[in-house]
Amino acid sequence: MKHIISALVQNEPGVLAHISTLFAGRGFNIDSLAVGETEDTAVSRMTVVVEGDEQVLEQVVKQLRKVISVLKVQDFSGRDYVERDLMLIKINAPSGRRGEIIELVTLFRGRVVDVSASELMVELSGPEKKLEAFIALVRPFGIKELCRTGRVALARGPR
Amino acid sequence: MKHIISALVQNEPGVLAHISTLFAGRGFNIDSLAVGETEDTAVSRMTVVVEGDEQVLEQVVKQLRKVISVLKVQDFSGRDYVERDLMLIKINAPSGRRGEIIELVTLFRGRVVDVSASELMVELSGPEKKLEAFIALVRPFGIKELCRTGRVALARGPR
Repeated sequence: MKHIISALVQNEPGVLAHISTLFAGRGFNIDSLAVGETEDTAVSRMTVVVEGDEQVLEQVVKQLRKVISVLKVQDFSGRDYVERDLMLIKINAPSGRRGEIIELVTLFRGRVVDVSASELMVELSGPEKKLEAFIALVRPFGIKELCRTGRVALARGPR
Repeated sequence: MKHIISALVQNEPGVLAHISTLFAGRGFNIDSLAVGETEDTAVSRMTVVVEGDEQVLEQVVKQLRKVISVLKVQDFSGRDYVERDLMLIKINAPSGRRGEIIELVTLFRGRVVDVSASELMVELSGPEKKLEAFIALVRPFGIKELCRTGRVALARGPR
């Protein structure tokens, strides 16, 4: 089962190294990781998606909570939350086939952000499954480059 | 000056710990970091935004290139690229003021993804400056929670 762990951490050098070493030490591979700013410039939010043994993960979360620069840890499993991932994808698009791709982009509420003679660059955000469905549909055209932010999540309803 | 470094890495435990230790060892604070999947499931793309001394950064990039699990490193400085960041933001929104916030969301081409009696959750993506302009405009309403993926980037035009 995949877990989305969200941690508020002090924005200072070494915190990320410390945390990623904690996960690696337990043999966890990180599916995705996003570290970005929050409303407070001194604090960053780290969202980690990992898959692995529940009990071992519970221990990692306990260890995380003990790290001084970690202010708060949440595991979204079993909670009601909104998750989003963002992707930039460069698709092979000779002029004759551009229309087909643009149709898919519109259906998925994406945006074309760059056009060249032979390629389109598209921005698309949404839950993981939506991104994966789009990737599967454009794969036959040829994917030139693809870049994803990894997931971020916030719990629904008042805190 | 801020640098956006993009690295293709093998998707295996320990790579992230290795790389973040490299940056921390040189005293670099990471502004944002996004690690997500690519078109190849064995490979992840890591996008790091760092600010610091150019020469020291050049050395870090050289060291990065020597790491076996690192397949490719690009520094986007001085290149033509598209960058995107995604944010989920929960804003204080009593029913009487909801309309004002929704107006801003529409202007910024964002999406309302959750509504409760007293709050709105909004998804917004774009370049860093757009996100920051939106945050500044909704701050007076009261920001309850905010989560950003950190930036990802792809070079414009054919590879």
